[in-house]
Amino acid sequence: MVLVAIEPYGSRVEVSEGSTLLHAIRLAGLSITSLCGGFGLCGKCRVVVISRSSKLSELSQSEVRRLNDSEVKAGYRLACQARVFSDVTIYIPVESRVRVKDRKAVTRGFMREVKLKPLVRKFKVQLPPPSLRDQRPDLDRLIDSLKAVAEVSEVVVDYESLKNLPTTLREANWSISCVLHGREVVSVEPGNTFSESYGVAVDVGTSKIVIHLVDLTTGEIRAVDLAENPQLAYGEDIVSRMTFANVSEDNLRILQLLLINSINELVERVCKQVGASVDRIYEIIVVGNTAMHHFLLGLKTKHLSASPFTPVVGRSISIKARDLGIKSNIGAVVTALPVIAGFVGADAVADALATGILSREDNVILLDIGTNTEIFVGNSERMLVCSAPSGPALEGAHIRHGMKAINGAIEEVSISSEGEVEYSVIGDVKPRGICGSAIIDVVAELYRNNLIDSRGRFRKNLELKRLRRGVNGWEYVIAWSDETSMGKDIVVSEKDINEVILAKAAIYSGISVLLRRRGLSERDISEVIVAGSFGTHINPFSAKIIGIIPDVPDNKVKFVGNTAIMGADMALLSVDSRSEAERIARAVEYVELSADPYFNEEFLSALIIPHKNEERFALTKSLLIK
Amino acid sequence: MVLVAIEPYGSRVEVSEGSTLLHAIRLAGLSITSLCGGFGLCGKCRVVVISRSSKLSELSQSEVRRLNDSEVKAGYRLACQARVFSDVTIYIPVESRVRVKDRKAVTRGFMREVKLKPLVRKFKVQLPPPSLRDQRPDLDRLIDSLKAVAEVSEVVVDYESLKNLPTTLREANWSISCVLHGREVVSVEPGNTFSESYGVAVDVGTSKIVIHLVDLTTGEIRAVDLAENPQLAYGEDIVSRMTFANVSEDNLRILQLLLINSINELVERVCKQVGASVDRIYEIIVVGNTAMHHFLLGLKTKHLSASPFTPVVGRSISIKARDLGIKSNIGAVVTALPVIAGFVGADAVADALATGILSREDNVILLDIGTNTEIFVGNSERMLVCSAPSGPALEGAHIRHGMKAINGAIEEVSISSEGEVEYSVIGDVKPRGICGSAIIDVVAELYRNNLIDSRGRFRKNLELKRLRRGVNGWEYVIAWSDETSMGKDIVVSEKDINEVILAKAAIYSGISVLLRRRGLSERDISEVIVAGSFGTHINPFSAKIIGIIPDVPDNKVKFVGNTAIMGADMALLSVDSRSEAERIARAVEYVELSADPYFNEEFLSALIIPHKNEERFALTKSLLIK
Repeated sequence: MVLVAIEPYGSRVEVSEGSTLLHAIRLAGLSITSLCGGFGLCGKCRVVVISRSSKLSELSQSEVRRLNDSEVKAGYRLACQARVFSDVTIYIPVESRVRVKDRKAVTRGFMREVKLKPLVRKFKVQLPPPSLRDQRPDLDRLIDSLKAVAEVSEVVVDYESLKNLPTTLREANWSISCVLHGREVVSVEPGNTFSESYGVAVDVGTSKIVIHLVDLTTGEIRAVDLAENPQLAYGEDIVSRMTFANVSEDNLRILQLLLINSINELVERVCKQVGASVDRIYEIIVVGNTAMHHFLLGLKTKHLSASPFTPVVGRSISIKARDLGIKSNIGAVVTALPVIAGFVGADAVADALATGILSREDNVILLDIGTNTEIFVGNSERMLVCSAPSGPALEGAHIRHGMKAINGAIEEVSISSEGEVEYSVIGDVKPRGICGSAIIDVVAELYRNNLIDSRGRFRKNLELKRLRRGVNGWEYVIAWSDETSMGKDIVVSEKDINEVILAKAAIYSGISVLLRRRGLSERDISEVIVAGSFGTHINPFSAKIIGIIPDVPDNKVKFVGNTAIMGADMALLSVDSRSEAERIARAVEYVELSADPYFNEEFLSALIIPHKNEERFALTKSLLIK
Repeated sequence: MVLVAIEPYGSRVEVSEGSTLLHAIRLAGLSITSLCGGFGLCGKCRVVVISRSSKLSELSQSEVRRLNDSEVKAGYRLACQARVFSDVTIYIPVESRVRVKDRKAVTRGFMREVKLKPLVRKFKVQLPPPSLRDQRPDLDRLIDSLKAVAEVSEVVVDYESLKNLPTTLREANWSISCVLHGREVVSVEPGNTFSESYGVAVDVGTSKIVIHLVDLTTGEIRAVDLAENPQLAYGEDIVSRMTFANVSEDNLRILQLLLINSINELVERVCKQVGASVDRIYEIIVVGNTAMHHFLLGLKTKHLSASPFTPVVGRSISIKARDLGIKSNIGAVVTALPVIAGFVGADAVADALATGILSREDNVILLDIGTNTEIFVGNSERMLVCSAPSGPALEGAHIRHGMKAINGAIEEVSISSEGEVEYSVIGDVKPRGICGSAIIDVVAELYRNNLIDSRGRFRKNLELKRLRRGVNGWEYVIAWSDETSMGKDIVVSEKDINEVILAKAAIYSGISVLLRRRGLSERDISEVIVAGSFGTHINPFSAKIIGIIPDVPDNKVKFVGNTAIMGADMALLSVDSRSEAERIARAVEYVELSADPYFNEEFLSALIIPHKNEERFALTKSLLIK
């Protein structure tokens, strides 16, 4: 065993010889940014070795690729690559630390109006006490009285509720409140608890978990909260986590438990906010992409992660919360909304439900931009959906100085025709990186000012002090070292620009394929709806300049926020919305991009800024001053 | 702590000072007959203290009452009363030992023919493998293919089956067998397992648990087994056990676990008998009296044990076998058939189902004799039921030399006009007691020969060597000490005869009350059906002589055996039988004897042998030679 000391935390942990530093950091209960899940791909888990004489493994190929000479000299290593063979002291620099604090978390969104008609109903019931002339069993007595006040024909009872029934009825002196989940009695409570009836909506995102506490009596969202997805420690992207989960049932169980623990904390927090009792939560509606959906339900993702990307289950599925271990009333039910395909999950169904796109006669596009971008194109007659592999670049990953939209991230950038840069930073701090929305701005601004060509290559003949040749090729300085918190320049390289172009090409070619299949052009689209946390922060003008979203007038672009959680709210509030979610999942036609004959051609055309066919972006082009 | 040595087992166990000998015996893992559950009421837990100088508690009131002088001199104590204050050696005499071996266990009975239409159905299904052109989720793929071979509309899936679905489908190369329990997929198995589809029927009796392994493909009963109810250690009668269960949830849980463990052993045994796999059991149907029903399901019996004797649940109830811990396929379902009232349980419903009494136009009486005797009177138009508190006397308890119908029990007795006795014994052994059927014979024979009067009192003027005054009053010697295994006379006392009369009065007055309510007399009855293990062994002629069952010709008395387990079989074999059970439970009118205005009068009239109104037994009277 060797001893690893971790600064600036003063932690000490013993690991066996040959362990990675990442393993040691995790064992010490500390966090470090690791977007790829420990495969040496993202280069984010940088640490500095302080005890220079310690024995560590040689630099790996991926370290050689990710670290420049001066970093190597300074003792930088990638924690996932460096293996220890003697006692060592390391330092986790600021840029590698996981920060929790968020910019402006998008915890709500647009939602159609919905008539209150929840599946969970609570009734006040007065029972006649038993006597020698009326010896009906407790349950039959309850159901007979319940039928007199509720419109129900066949009633079943939750086994756990049944166990406590005799005691509850007598303690309550035969005056109780009875909770029905559909036709199942899930809770019997002494006295009148009519005003306390809650449901919980959960949106399990790859990066964040958002929760709503919904009052099922009034329809109000009573409390909102969110947390980082704790699975981030196992990789920023879904594929890393599925790779981890596919190794063993234990690993899958670990990912499931991380979600459940986090949801339980959130449940307690929203209840505390309004002084509600966890016991009065009778239903939990869950949405999330298909991988998160499977992780939460403990379903194998092995076949989701390889072609033909088959989910275990599509239709909505209900499980007792107690069987999953989610805190709530003992009889409460968890329902996961349906998923459409391996990369079009229950969150996309909820987006469609909340925005009502399947009820529209005019044609619309709905986008939920992320590592995978879900794209809907069509109307009530025929709606297509696909998932475009946009990758994590737009969220700051695979970008040299990219980071998430948290404190210290540059979030907006403008560049003048002289090449000068202005930017704004999240939080009252010096910048330490650049987040997705700003990267789009940078590429759009460089292109608008003619500093890069339509293939994203710098015009090297320009004599600009910010444009220079770095160790990794040409780069543009966004912030000078003296402006930043790490004392290093923040740059965007030609390689970074290329990552953005790959991402935008994936999204736009997805849109193109669906438009073509549907026999539509941009002109037929009456609205481009951008859902999701990321979508809320991008500058639509920048997005159109580089050709992420179709070239429609600004008033036709609508940002709707987190509609996934709102769709979950709708399902809590109305049985009709719930059936509609099921209908949406069945009605929408899934298009597998990789199997579409035109996808490659469309993808290649979209690798040009804004597009090979400039006509498709004539409107935005005409607005550019130069 | 003091040391208790228990002979003839050579066991040694440490207990704290002041513990009862019963506690020590149980702690040593040994069994001793204890019918009352350790309250000093039954006097069955006799032990002999060998180490005469040991310090024990003084004789208790109940020991003074239950032990005669010579026994006290011989060192006899009641294990539940005697407390130890020093090391002691005790001996458990033969008469106090629990024997497992049974006479002729009644593990089957009459059953109406039933058309095979089980709720559990197994289908062979071939699925098309997924591809980029057919990316349906695994479950949707399964259900689509299943619908093509099975007539099902809406299908749900068991969560545990879902978890293994992706692996199973691929390992099986998309060729599987799928098990439906109603509309729920409970198991998905690789290949063709069509011929292996089992259900289990369990009759949880107060003394015995009987199990059937039923082939759901052919309808055959493939294997049968039985075991003592392990709860016997907590009292022979239901009331003792409910008293124990009512003390704490732990106690209830203990009684539940005893049943579950015993059922699990039986499940393994029947599977082993025919080489079946426990995994191929998809359904378990349970019947039993209401207390056993509640114990097995872990439902509180507190309100069942006191007026107005309210069960927690009446209707049939289904629970996943895994939630109860019953061995079977992981998706299997346990269904308890409905109960009618606190003392008319699912076993009575099953009796009615198997015999079909609710389909009959003629009027019948159905009896299931036990500590409580369930009595049905009526026909398809109107059927009444009651529970008569017949007590355990007819099963050998509360009788000086009474014992269960196991090895060493006198099972048949005839007495000549000179008062001489002939008897037969169960097993190839000397007698050590007298069981229920023989006690009825004794009373009938004594009455037939005019040795007792119609109130059960010996005619003391007769000079017979077997008739004598014992320590507990007048008694009749059935077996002399040199014929018995304990070297003591086996006698039937006037007090014993009185116990039998109390029991028969309870049963007959129950019948009378129902006949009166129904506006019928014995002449309107076309059949007296006697169900149950005990009923199978009684001599109908003896039973009519003393007035237990109505005075109908022998050809109208039908012994049907264990119809409770057969009713459970029917429910396994046919969904129609299952609905019929539900209909029976609702259609039958329960009569609470203790609330009937005529019950007392009828009871008093039935305290006479055969009855106060001799006319009611004219037929049998006319057959008596003298």
